[in-house]
Amino acid sequence: MNELETGEQPGVIEQSVRRHRGQAVEMVETVTDHVGQEWPVALVFNGISHAVMMCTPRDLEEFAVGFAISEGIVERGAHIQDIEVEFRDGKLPHAEVQLTVVQQAFVALKEKRRALSGRTGCGVCGIESIDLLDLTPERIPDTGFLQRLAPDAIARAAKELPAHQALTKMTGGLHAAAWCDATGAIRYAFEDVGRHNALDKLIGRLVLDRVDTTDGFVFLSSRASYELVRKAARVDIPMVATISAPSSLAITIAREAGVRLVSFCRESSYVDYDTV
Amino acid sequence: MNELETGEQPGVIEQSVRRHRGQAVEMVETVTDHVGQEWPVALVFNGISHAVMMCTPRDLEEFAVGFAISEGIVERGAHIQDIEVEFRDGKLPHAEVQLTVVQQAFVALKEKRRALSGRTGCGVCGIESIDLLDLTPERIPDTGFLQRLAPDAIARAAKELPAHQALTKMTGGLHAAAWCDATGAIRYAFEDVGRHNALDKLIGRLVLDRVDTTDGFVFLSSRASYELVRKAARVDIPMVATISAPSSLAITIAREAGVRLVSFCRESSYVDYDTV
Repeated sequence: MNELETGEQPGVIEQSVRRHRGQAVEMVETVTDHVGQEWPVALVFNGISHAVMMCTPRDLEEFAVGFAISEGIVERGAHIQDIEVEFRDGKLPHAEVQLTVVQQAFVALKEKRRALSGRTGCGVCGIESIDLLDLTPERIPDTGFLQRLAPDAIARAAKELPAHQALTKMTGGLHAAAWCDATGAIRYAFEDVGRHNALDKLIGRLVLDRVDTTDGFVFLSSRASYELVRKAARVDIPMVATISAPSSLAITIAREAGVRLVSFCRESSYVDYDTV
Repeated sequence: MNELETGEQPGVIEQSVRRHRGQAVEMVETVTDHVGQEWPVALVFNGISHAVMMCTPRDLEEFAVGFAISEGIVERGAHIQDIEVEFRDGKLPHAEVQLTVVQQAFVALKEKRRALSGRTGCGVCGIESIDLLDLTPERIPDTGFLQRLAPDAIARAAKELPAHQALTKMTGGLHAAAWCDATGAIRYAFEDVGRHNALDKLIGRLVLDRVDTTDGFVFLSSRASYELVRKAARVDIPMVATISAPSSLAITIAREAGVRLVSFCRESSYVDYDTV
């Protein structure tokens, strides 16, 4: 469990478990199974610790870049000048990502921090009062992607996703975020114990590879909440497709941002939420 | 979508959607469906806004009590002297829960806030640096519950849960947290768009009803993450059972706290993670 090695992590660990089967006459066997790694990962901007996320310790460079952008800390990838990922030993293995961002972004981040009075809570990225909620997204630019989208793109993405979920196959439970082109072909996919983290990793990779985020869609193994749609809208992604249900606020935010939201996506069906 | 009425909320709203079926020849029908409500809910302690959670706006008194206790803001229910829930009109419907806590708890909360330098991030309840993480739970008292647990208790809880998921049945995707006795009979159940919120609502109700939290277990429709186990341990719950997979840190924390963790719980099987 408590890995002492540092360096790149596999995303899953081996774990001895007892499997129970049957009700009346119970069968119990002790077997080695795989479990998704969940580590505290500290995000440090220009030397100042900003947030600790519980995260699967893989693809942390992508994660940090995606988080910085989808949370509005930097406006574009070029504003991140350096990234260093460190894995730490000890009783509680954890990771630290040191980001160096341009002075302008760091000043803005410090201003934001100063404007708040103290410790803030959970839920919406440390926001402590309703007035500070950023719930009115700008409309994303319409580059005609939805017109170019193949009629069977959602079906194709739904069919292809499992092949990209290696960690889920091993553990039975991680989230995946995939980037699909207009045909529904999956171009990138990331997995994490957290669905927000999986999306941040994906956004980070798109930014690092300078992919045109207006020319594709994200396909998520999870439900659609406010935060996932908000993150996608911040980088002008024109469509969010999820396997499970959306929340009311996800639908509202998608409509306001001009993001097409489709949920319950299967190989042979899906539900569209952009009706007015 | 944007309800203007205030007062008690149903937890789901009606939503016009387009259902797509079939690949080659596509059928599209516009129907009225149900979607789980996700609202910003501000938690205000003695007049100071502490956190905003994205939450299903039902059972908010339970939610606030559970959050205050499972996050360690108050030690026991008696330290909460008053709770008022207000639903607010406007473009963005939201709710505010005003809690009045004993002076001692409020002073401790203010101290905690002062100790941190400014805006903190998401992930682990606003914690901004690894050093502040509370990852070493005290061991819960052993009251012999696990010895009293019926062999088919997990199977029974798994069988009974769907009957308590009215909102999930309507929407296809909310999380549930249930309280079960030693026979596996479900005594309380709450639903929410967030799995942490569902557990907080349950803990809040247990505290309000002065239920002995050492004499039962929680059954969760979700995966098991660090935070869910940590919340359960804080109120001495001896077992956490989940339908989906656990994370590595959930297993570590459960073991350190002395909480039995079982996952992939079905009517005829489950997996035990308390092996050393």
